[in-house]
Amino acid sequence: MSGSIVVVGSVALDSVKTLEGESKEALGGSAVYFSLAARNFNPVSVVGVVGKDFPAEHREMLTERGIDLSGLKVMPGKTFRWVGKFGRDLSDAKTLATHLNVFKDFKPVLTAEQRRAPVVFLANIDPELQAEVLAQMQSPAVVACDTMNYWISSKPEALKELLGKVQIFFANEEEAKKLTRQPNALRAANTICEWGPSVVVIKEGEHGAVLKVGRKFYVFPAFPLETVKDPTGAGDTFAGGFMGYLAACRGFDDVESLKRAMLYGTVTASFTVEDFSTRSIEGLSRGRLDERFEDFLDRLSVSRGAAVAA
Amino acid sequence: MSGSIVVVGSVALDSVKTLEGESKEALGGSAVYFSLAARNFNPVSVVGVVGKDFPAEHREMLTERGIDLSGLKVMPGKTFRWVGKFGRDLSDAKTLATHLNVFKDFKPVLTAEQRRAPVVFLANIDPELQAEVLAQMQSPAVVACDTMNYWISSKPEALKELLGKVQIFFANEEEAKKLTRQPNALRAANTICEWGPSVVVIKEGEHGAVLKVGRKFYVFPAFPLETVKDPTGAGDTFAGGFMGYLAACRGFDDVESLKRAMLYGTVTASFTVEDFSTRSIEGLSRGRLDERFEDFLDRLSVSRGAAVAA
Repeated sequence: MSGSIVVVGSVALDSVKTLEGESKEALGGSAVYFSLAARNFNPVSVVGVVGKDFPAEHREMLTERGIDLSGLKVMPGKTFRWVGKFGRDLSDAKTLATHLNVFKDFKPVLTAEQRRAPVVFLANIDPELQAEVLAQMQSPAVVACDTMNYWISSKPEALKELLGKVQIFFANEEEAKKLTRQPNALRAANTICEWGPSVVVIKEGEHGAVLKVGRKFYVFPAFPLETVKDPTGAGDTFAGGFMGYLAACRGFDDVESLKRAMLYGTVTASFTVEDFSTRSIEGLSRGRLDERFEDFLDRLSVSRGAAVAA
Repeated sequence: MSGSIVVVGSVALDSVKTLEGESKEALGGSAVYFSLAARNFNPVSVVGVVGKDFPAEHREMLTERGIDLSGLKVMPGKTFRWVGKFGRDLSDAKTLATHLNVFKDFKPVLTAEQRRAPVVFLANIDPELQAEVLAQMQSPAVVACDTMNYWISSKPEALKELLGKVQIFFANEEEAKKLTRQPNALRAANTICEWGPSVVVIKEGEHGAVLKVGRKFYVFPAFPLETVKDPTGAGDTFAGGFMGYLAACRGFDDVESLKRAMLYGTVTASFTVEDFSTRSIEGLSRGRLDERFEDFLDRLSVSRGAAVAA
């Protein structure tokens, strides 16, 4: 199923404050983070919208990295903006302001080439828009999707309907528990699988992520980092590394490929949080990713066989 | 360093309520949980105290499992009791009542054999008592220690002084952050290493555990369980599985042995929480432990080498 990935999601200017510093009107948005992560593995093409104020330098940076922006519409008005902050608990983003701007009237229209793509990732936008994008795809081999608290509260039925057409679902732990009313990530994944997806990934931030495929769970820790500067985009780059790697594999239901995808997602996200905005993943190469992937694998590896007896 | 492990800690009767049910005046206490976990790997000997009301059946059950109770003193009065409950958040134990009873005037006195043991585990009791036990040991090869919030608040200086004589320190994430005033588990482990221990294990409950040895961190997830009936004793059985396995290894600073000890700790704890009190670990055999250890290793294993390209 090798081939390009289409991602629909937000392209934003974020202002973020954490205990380690802050960024102002910096490049962000789920489609941006996802693309910058996935492009290390496979070609990516964005469906989205920006306002006339979207800086040319961002467009150039993304294009230089091989990301196809022919499906990124420019509309009169301002680009989507998010203002947020993080305290000590890095899993708890406080939204201070959301300015939808041009995103308010966004109607996704895919290019002819995007419609033929084998892999589509529906980032955390309105589930009705996610469904509109999906309806335009010709016959994707894999449909993956993410969501967020806001849509779980406001459009749970549209989201559940969408999940019937999705093979791989990403959600963070709190979202998954809220959506399913289950007490833990594992039971939440079970319920989500009943609604459609055959692969569910529950992201637990600094505590790693859970993969459910078939009847089995595979849990992986996060890559250990002593300092996290800005957790914004960690989930989207996790999905980008995961889907980017998986799109180059034999199939989306092969457990070995999925486990490696989990590790590539984890490692990609670990770079993202080391700096504000997209700074640390803009310059990321496949070589550096592979280096940390190997380091992570070394730490996780436990020798099999007889105990080292005295 | 093969040989028996001496553990000093509480022997208790616990009454616990969780969303899955409850237990009343059931066997508990850190020394009990630790012993039942460690005895699968190495001989264990308890230093502790009970009242005259301590049921003979518990004493028999522990002795039958090879646990040496010659250092368990019987005092006039009642056995230590803890009453607690857990809500949805299984990492958050609410203490409803603590009756110290005979534990109030507990003065640990080790038998001649215990003084010569190569490995000692100081469970989460008063750091001054932990130091008294340590002072009675002749020349242990390894000193390991745990603590809890209560002592971090009330005797932080005694605890820090003790840590100067400890090689392996266990703490849960919240405790470690509180003790060190650091924002995350990794930085907390760094600070603790400065105080003495060369190996630090930060337990993160359902999210696994972090091992720090040398300058490196090794993070492992918890074994995935869809239902946790009672988390009481999970941390003590983690330490029991870890220390029990490690005591049979070449040395306490060998990374490969420590990683395997992390997995044995994790797997042992996963049995504990599947039922109330000590029910599920009383009958646990090394065979069943090894079976789940292998299962866990399979889930964690990620193939190295070239990507599975299409």
